[in-house]
Amino acid sequence: MPPRRGSLKRGRQQRFHLLSQVHSTSPHGKAGLPSPPVQLPTRTVADLGERALIQRITARLVAPAWLVVGPGDDAAVVEPERGALDVFTTDVQVEGVHFDRRFVAPDAIGHRALAVNLSDLAAMGARPRAALLSLVLPDALDVATFDGLVDGLLAIASAYRVAVVGGNISRSPGPLVVDVTAIGTVRRRRVLTRSGARPGDRVYLTGTVGDGLAGLESLRDGGTQMMQAQEQRYLRPDPRVRAGLALGSHRAASACMDLSDGLADAVRQVAQASGAGITIDADALPIADPVRRWHEARGRDPIEAALQGGDDYELLFTSRPAHHGRLRGAQRAFGGLLVTRIGEVTRERRLLLRTGGGSRDLPEGYEHFR
Amino acid sequence: MPPRRGSLKRGRQQRFHLLSQVHSTSPHGKAGLPSPPVQLPTRTVADLGERALIQRITARLVAPAWLVVGPGDDAAVVEPERGALDVFTTDVQVEGVHFDRRFVAPDAIGHRALAVNLSDLAAMGARPRAALLSLVLPDALDVATFDGLVDGLLAIASAYRVAVVGGNISRSPGPLVVDVTAIGTVRRRRVLTRSGARPGDRVYLTGTVGDGLAGLESLRDGGTQMMQAQEQRYLRPDPRVRAGLALGSHRAASACMDLSDGLADAVRQVAQASGAGITIDADALPIADPVRRWHEARGRDPIEAALQGGDDYELLFTSRPAHHGRLRGAQRAFGGLLVTRIGEVTRERRLLLRTGGGSRDLPEGYEHFR
Repeated sequence: MPPRRGSLKRGRQQRFHLLSQVHSTSPHGKAGLPSPPVQLPTRTVADLGERALIQRITARLVAPAWLVVGPGDDAAVVEPERGALDVFTTDVQVEGVHFDRRFVAPDAIGHRALAVNLSDLAAMGARPRAALLSLVLPDALDVATFDGLVDGLLAIASAYRVAVVGGNISRSPGPLVVDVTAIGTVRRRRVLTRSGARPGDRVYLTGTVGDGLAGLESLRDGGTQMMQAQEQRYLRPDPRVRAGLALGSHRAASACMDLSDGLADAVRQVAQASGAGITIDADALPIADPVRRWHEARGRDPIEAALQGGDDYELLFTSRPAHHGRLRGAQRAFGGLLVTRIGEVTRERRLLLRTGGGSRDLPEGYEHFR
Repeated sequence: MPPRRGSLKRGRQQRFHLLSQVHSTSPHGKAGLPSPPVQLPTRTVADLGERALIQRITARLVAPAWLVVGPGDDAAVVEPERGALDVFTTDVQVEGVHFDRRFVAPDAIGHRALAVNLSDLAAMGARPRAALLSLVLPDALDVATFDGLVDGLLAIASAYRVAVVGGNISRSPGPLVVDVTAIGTVRRRRVLTRSGARPGDRVYLTGTVGDGLAGLESLRDGGTQMMQAQEQRYLRPDPRVRAGLALGSHRAASACMDLSDGLADAVRQVAQASGAGITIDADALPIADPVRRWHEARGRDPIEAALQGGDDYELLFTSRPAHHGRLRGAQRAFGGLLVTRIGEVTRERRLLLRTGGGSRDLPEGYEHFR
């Protein structure tokens, strides 16, 4: 399911078309003030109103055949996939908590809002299908930012064939809040949960860790040439949907979870849900060289940073040694994505980090409010 | 589907039990300050942390048989109802926009957050089944308020047999935000939409209108003896789930919509979606006597107030004259709820208000940002 760049491009053109339409017909200077000669006045979402904003989104939506009643009614009506289960998840992006508009572009806000939810579906082995979008917007938000946010969200929706089937727009007396509910589908025998790990299972990780934190820090510093790839991974994470689907369909994973709150947290959650322990090999952790150097230059252990940092939307999964063939089959199906064996599931219910110098307790993960 | 008060009571007892547990084991005065002699220190959600808050909710949830994977994993997995369609809606309650904590008690915030979504499902003729709960909480929110909110939400969830299957909790640097996604189920031939009204159809309304606005105004004034029923309707609206289900199963309605943004808005939306006009009889509008007097005492036309005020979660629906028998059947099924014929669908695409003195254009409804 490669991103379909054609759709992204079409979306952007449509946006500019819409914007130019609005600018040419909008009642500027209605308070009697003359317009500045060059700069167009900033239009805010409060100027446009809720209904016009909703139409700006719905005009760009394509209705799949299984959508019986789409946006514009009291609720969306959807034909479930025959013989499959529904999968539901919701996750929110709050300005000042999950993103900073000074260095996260509007399209990245929209991209992230859907991506973090698709990452949750991926961790269940589910195929994404639909999304509901709840926007809580400050009155003063400019329409260009709104359009950019919608662009970013619809671009990744299109790439993963997700239909936006409903939503709502409301005012915010505080931060911008983007709340998304994602709906997926999975066959019963392909569901991946956190609770299936057994002692002796191997622990694997897709991609690399520590990139999200390094990218965020680099963006906060105003951007770094060396960290461009990590900045992109922070801004526009690519959820591991194909990997999750392949792990599920090949029945290659005994447990699976995404890394939204960091690797240490994911290890802890999978171990706890499975009633087992996990030992992680520090030396095996896939940390990109520039990320390693980034953390070392800040006097910080790259291993600790990779374990505790968030915003890496990779999958942690476990697999039985006897299912090595299944795992290879799954890997062939999801292509060039790196998969690294990083540890093992243990009978003793401890969470350990094994280093050259011995074993010690795994550090804690990230938690909101803490 | 009458509210099961037993569950509500059990919920409250459990809350107090949890609270007393927390108070007896919490490390108060850890900053070295002596505790005040009588008043217990206020514990905030930031004190407890995200995970403890989530456990406070999940500990109270009951998993129905169709819930394959419940809260605690990356996403919820649900068995769809056989032979039925899924119905999805999302609606948000934002502090300072949709509610004011000075006069809306925590349990009413939770009640309203789910009720407004159930009202949307009702308008589709859908049976509610599940909900996802997204809470964005200010750090300083006290735990008692959090518990009260959850109480209110779980009480109405229990009354309508809605399972909370997932959600998330996040920090807010601004207002309290409660975003709910509700999931329902409906058979294909029973779906109610906004678009099926035809010229000659009669227009009906459940319950009374204008109560929400009068109740809100009375609460803002500090509460009024005469307005207690209206205040309750504002604080704890009862979504017309049974009426929607009966209208759908008896195939008695050609179009249906809930009044979340006011009666005038609903009339407009149904007419627009159906490509028809609607004429409303001013004299037929079901406005309770105290509400009428409330508005008159404020020098305001009660008809205008009933048409433009929001927060009445009634259903507006249309029905073919030939389906009068079906409508009577549906009414028998949903019991004592008032149903009033308030107008008719016209071929001419105008929205009119017919009064003793003639006809005039229907006023506009409420819109966010306007």
